[in-house]
Amino acid sequence: MTLDTATKAGLEDVVVATSSICYLDGRRGVLAYRGYDIHDLAEHATFEEVCYLLWHGRLPNRAELGELQSQLVTSRRLPEGVLRLLRSLPPSNAMDALRTVVSALSHFDSGANDMSPVGRYRTSVAMTAQLGSVVAISARIAAGGGVIDPDPALSHAANFLYMLTGKRPSQLEARALDVALVLHADHEFNASTFAARVCAATLTDVHSAMVAAIGALKGPLHGGANADVMNLLLGVGQDATDEKIEETIRARLGRKEKIPGFGHRVYRTEDPRATHLRRMSEELCRRTGNLRWFEISQKIEQVVKAQKNLNANVDFYSATTYYALGIPVDVFTPVFAVSRISGWTAHVLEQYANNRLIRPRAEYTGPQYPQTYIPLDRR
Amino acid sequence: MTLDTATKAGLEDVVVATSSICYLDGRRGVLAYRGYDIHDLAEHATFEEVCYLLWHGRLPNRAELGELQSQLVTSRRLPEGVLRLLRSLPPSNAMDALRTVVSALSHFDSGANDMSPVGRYRTSVAMTAQLGSVVAISARIAAGGGVIDPDPALSHAANFLYMLTGKRPSQLEARALDVALVLHADHEFNASTFAARVCAATLTDVHSAMVAAIGALKGPLHGGANADVMNLLLGVGQDATDEKIEETIRARLGRKEKIPGFGHRVYRTEDPRATHLRRMSEELCRRTGNLRWFEISQKIEQVVKAQKNLNANVDFYSATTYYALGIPVDVFTPVFAVSRISGWTAHVLEQYANNRLIRPRAEYTGPQYPQTYIPLDRR
Repeated sequence: MTLDTATKAGLEDVVVATSSICYLDGRRGVLAYRGYDIHDLAEHATFEEVCYLLWHGRLPNRAELGELQSQLVTSRRLPEGVLRLLRSLPPSNAMDALRTVVSALSHFDSGANDMSPVGRYRTSVAMTAQLGSVVAISARIAAGGGVIDPDPALSHAANFLYMLTGKRPSQLEARALDVALVLHADHEFNASTFAARVCAATLTDVHSAMVAAIGALKGPLHGGANADVMNLLLGVGQDATDEKIEETIRARLGRKEKIPGFGHRVYRTEDPRATHLRRMSEELCRRTGNLRWFEISQKIEQVVKAQKNLNANVDFYSATTYYALGIPVDVFTPVFAVSRISGWTAHVLEQYANNRLIRPRAEYTGPQYPQTYIPLDRR
Repeated sequence: MTLDTATKAGLEDVVVATSSICYLDGRRGVLAYRGYDIHDLAEHATFEEVCYLLWHGRLPNRAELGELQSQLVTSRRLPEGVLRLLRSLPPSNAMDALRTVVSALSHFDSGANDMSPVGRYRTSVAMTAQLGSVVAISARIAAGGGVIDPDPALSHAANFLYMLTGKRPSQLEARALDVALVLHADHEFNASTFAARVCAATLTDVHSAMVAAIGALKGPLHGGANADVMNLLLGVGQDATDEKIEETIRARLGRKEKIPGFGHRVYRTEDPRATHLRRMSEELCRRTGNLRWFEISQKIEQVVKAQKNLNANVDFYSATTYYALGIPVDVFTPVFAVSRISGWTAHVLEQYANNRLIRPRAEYTGPQYPQTYIPLDRR
């Protein structure tokens, strides 16, 4: 048995499998789902179209899209038992609640352990719809509000905002979230997707793989960063002068602290998603009459670029975009999950279809083998 | 950016990181925790000693072991809210219940998101103790029985059997489970441990990483195999002749079906854990007056060896061992988790202590980039 050692920590730049879902060229700043450039999708496609694209490998025609939309709409309403569970959980981190409730969804779904190709796909569609409802309802309960029933006439993005805020969003707001969902839907073998694939490769069920992904997304080095960006902005404060902002960022960099929302393992250019989110953030902040958060973001971006030559990533301008949409900061990372579950499920469906257990090796660096066992009384 | 391609699917034989926890030599059939051979540990050590060894890198003295034991005993009692949740969940797969309840434990633990080294260790100890209680109580509720309070005078293994069956186990029974827990405690970068490390590398919390591991362990290519072994034996039936057994196994092999409990990604020899479990299975089956399950296992082992040259792995004789201990088949994989959480937590503590985000790459094999986006109306 010869072992092959991956040269870089964290499997950086190590190809671990083939995948036909996401094309990512970090040097040229290209992101494409199933061959379609993210810029085209962000301009023209809806989240529902992107779900179909990720799951089926091609864009839907009107009938196919209609069928998927009605499947998603049907699954929006959560089982009574799940609502009871949501109400009974002690207040906690929104990602912890999401993880627990998504795990619990399987108890109320008689098909959750149907691992046939049809069953796995059905579960993927249902969970994608349910995730939006779980996040919106959890947030309302956490804020002491009442549960809003889903509106079948609304798109996935618009219905989410409606269930979260209790107000039907404007066209601009609905489209802004829709584009954010499109931009976050997939990103090749990011940590949460890879965690989901490692799980799925044991041939465990879809719920287990999604729960693993949610747990990974929670981390501040992954999805947790978008909330950290907003907390950074709130910490700086709306009234901070440009000098004060620069001073704050320089001080953090001086203490070797990371600035959330900057740099990316793969991109050597600007993250192509950041381009769209920056524009949306500006437009939304302008419309809501509070351009200051956008301006502070721009100033931070400028300082980090000058000091560290790091580019804004997907998390940086999604923070102010979500804030302008009235989404509570604690719900930013769950919103990432509302989108990324489309990619997670596409990846586990791909993994199941051509599976091999993912079981790597470690280089042992501990005490020399064999150590002599000394009985307890003589230690 | 140059990409380095792992040559084999499923990261087979690919070293992805260093680790000082588990030494595994698949060619020589060696398994050692922190340098201590698994045969020495199976003969002499208790599960509690092994927990200390995995977490601290060395065996404890009597005072250190006593302190750990009392920490574990203190955490055995589950919060009232968790018991209420356990009772309220619809009946389901035992691993689904374990995943949901372990996720929910974080809501009842004010220190769950304390990511300091002290906090992470405290959570690891508490969760290791709690997992036994969750599995035992879930199984009793599923069987319609009452909840048994933990007995602080009993070892982790003995208390688990007591809380599960309502009877204080004999010395032989308690030691048999204790040895099984020692044997299952860690196994380098197995799929569930790797899933936990991928999660932890985003700097998410310990509960999230453990929930990911539970989801991965559920899979039939991983922990799910021990229940599959017992279901195979029960399917063959106690009264089957040797000819009938041979015919059944040959027929399954003829249909290219896998026989659960055989073969291993890493070992080219007999799994060193199987040696101990075979002996324990025989002794327990003999004492409980039903040697037949052991004999059937031996016959299957012989046929699979002759036909496929595959060796029994850890799952094969743990099935009859657990069955002879009165553990319901549905609870076999959860019992694996009761032990393996010691290794999972050791690995996430190691990951946190020297972290790098685990974010590999994929080789893209999908539709050529760029595809031309055609509007919905023209598709």
